[in-house]
Amino acid sequence: MLQFELLATEGLARRGRLTLNHGVVQTPIFMPVGTYGTVKGVTPRSLEEMGAQIILGNTFHLWMRPGLDVLQQFGGLHRFEQWNKPILTDSGGFQVWSLGEMRRISEEGVKFASPVNGDRLFLTPEISMQIQRILNSDIVMQFDECTPYETKGHRTTEAEARFSMELSRRWALRCQAEFQRLENPNALFGIVQGGMFEHLRQESLEALVEMDFPGYAIGGVSVGEPKEDMLRIMAHTPQRLPAHKPRYLMGVGTPEDLVEGVAQGVDLFDCVMPTRNARNGHLFTRFGDLKIRNARHRGDERPLDETCGCYTCRGVTNADGTVSGGFSRAYLHHLERCGEMLAPMLASIHNLHFYLDTMRQIREALDAGRFTAWAQAFREDRRRGV
Amino acid sequence: MLQFELLATEGLARRGRLTLNHGVVQTPIFMPVGTYGTVKGVTPRSLEEMGAQIILGNTFHLWMRPGLDVLQQFGGLHRFEQWNKPILTDSGGFQVWSLGEMRRISEEGVKFASPVNGDRLFLTPEISMQIQRILNSDIVMQFDECTPYETKGHRTTEAEARFSMELSRRWALRCQAEFQRLENPNALFGIVQGGMFEHLRQESLEALVEMDFPGYAIGGVSVGEPKEDMLRIMAHTPQRLPAHKPRYLMGVGTPEDLVEGVAQGVDLFDCVMPTRNARNGHLFTRFGDLKIRNARHRGDERPLDETCGCYTCRGVTNADGTVSGGFSRAYLHHLERCGEMLAPMLASIHNLHFYLDTMRQIREALDAGRFTAWAQAFREDRRRGV
Repeated sequence: MLQFELLATEGLARRGRLTLNHGVVQTPIFMPVGTYGTVKGVTPRSLEEMGAQIILGNTFHLWMRPGLDVLQQFGGLHRFEQWNKPILTDSGGFQVWSLGEMRRISEEGVKFASPVNGDRLFLTPEISMQIQRILNSDIVMQFDECTPYETKGHRTTEAEARFSMELSRRWALRCQAEFQRLENPNALFGIVQGGMFEHLRQESLEALVEMDFPGYAIGGVSVGEPKEDMLRIMAHTPQRLPAHKPRYLMGVGTPEDLVEGVAQGVDLFDCVMPTRNARNGHLFTRFGDLKIRNARHRGDERPLDETCGCYTCRGVTNADGTVSGGFSRAYLHHLERCGEMLAPMLASIHNLHFYLDTMRQIREALDAGRFTAWAQAFREDRRRGV
Repeated sequence: MLQFELLATEGLARRGRLTLNHGVVQTPIFMPVGTYGTVKGVTPRSLEEMGAQIILGNTFHLWMRPGLDVLQQFGGLHRFEQWNKPILTDSGGFQVWSLGEMRRISEEGVKFASPVNGDRLFLTPEISMQIQRILNSDIVMQFDECTPYETKGHRTTEAEARFSMELSRRWALRCQAEFQRLENPNALFGIVQGGMFEHLRQESLEALVEMDFPGYAIGGVSVGEPKEDMLRIMAHTPQRLPAHKPRYLMGVGTPEDLVEGVAQGVDLFDCVMPTRNARNGHLFTRFGDLKIRNARHRGDERPLDETCGCYTCRGVTNADGTVSGGFSRAYLHHLERCGEMLAPMLASIHNLHFYLDTMRQIREALDAGRFTAWAQAFREDRRRGV
């Protein structure tokens, strides 16, 4: 089940409401990545408190561990990881390509050796649909080939990108058939490929639109290409997708990329950047980014971001009226230097909150018809420096 | 400032109320260990929610990092780590001995090389008092020599234990003088030493009682001795300390050790066991301990402990009435196998909650005059097996 209502538009930017089997998602939205059934370093409770509405799971990883028997026993991923709101799962394709020499692709699917125990495994469009049926994710992604920016050391040629895109297109048909055969009550998204070639992207999206998916993703970006290529594809593809269906830009990106994506008509984003960078002490703030390991923070009593309302920056009010949390840069610097687990925990809360709150501000701006002005102010603030 | 009221007794066991500069502590109590200004893997908010009333900090570690200038700037440890309830700090002595060949002990104090940057440093009773004044901990521990169970490969002799105990006794006098000179508004505890020799323990405690400290600790246990030696000292020393002053058994121990300690008249405990074991997947439950890595938990839908009310086992109720958290053994097993940070986070919450809740149950039993019966049931439950 999927319903999508457009509530407002401003230029190409869209404000929407997406209803899925496990709840409603206000768009545009950022989706935290929970590869192994956990958004790294944060509890489901924290995610709810910071306003996460939908999170990701990775089909390939969950297939390997805990395995399908356990997930089936729990009736899917929601109860296993104790997240009762919507979940989107990828198809496993991206992870299989990342195995490099360990895999062999054919028309039928991908043969590879399990990175966990070496078992010889086979992933096909049908198997991906079967696994995602067991996961019971609200949004199921088609099994596709994520066309790389470089192939065998050279920039992927048009012929290579076409071959890859056409394979994904044929796999989309097989996914759709299997998804229906399984009577999956959730929603299957098609993925536009075509590399860095606009005319291939156009061909891909036209074929997928004809298949009438309830939503569409733009894949094959954030795969190592220069920023201007990413922006070029972002300026081409989203606006050409059906207006009444949700649009998901896969694996993007920086806070500035998200704002640009919204301006180009994207509704859904995911990226490991807020959590991965948090674990490396790279923190996002309204006034630019900050490396907490830097010695200049050693005695700084200020929070990371004085305008931020997260547990790390502002704390929470306890039942007895006292405030718990609200930490200084000096303290976060100290935790990081000592290798304390609380450092990535607090940094992950802050970075995810920053991403989610940026999207919340975008939704408010769109509701008020002032997104363009908001985006301009956002970019200026971010350039100011911390 | 320190006030201690005895509210009830049952045999040697005591139920008390300890008032310190940052608040009231109901005893008997377990104190989570926050070496570097953080109880490893848990937020201050979690600590408050699980009923922690007082936590530890380690003088030696905090002296090294973040350093005294930063701690002074923050007016002490409470604001730096955002913990507004009482804090106890050790003297730094135990960590200095742990440096082994890196240190040289004299009557004056201990010379050693900083394990962080190799600087040559000197720690004396006076310097320990000065550092703890800056930390502004509610309970300050005297600088002592923690007599080891073994010295140079043999069991510590009576002469060695006496020499060490007498050094600690002279240092206690110097600590008391410096504590007063600094006009420290908090409370200084003396530490009973004497190794595994009851008559030396008796000499030590008599000398310390004459100095009239507001509270006393039993040190030099949990230093590698056989369990029967620890129990022998626990049966000797606590009951011989002044009845109207709080008693702190340092570095002990298992849940069973805590119950035995209470039965012998101890009021305060600390130990790294709940947090350290959590990080190794060793979990405490009412019905015995559990290694979450064990394959038998792979598909187990039950919580760690069905009688436990912690976030990990039971979850919390959100503002919208839904429950967040409450995880299965299968999920915790999966997180542990994948090396996910959420595994030690959830395990630390559970283990600390178990220790704190055990002490809460002990206080309730003492209030109701049924501690002996409670302790018997506790031991039987724990032997049952998970």
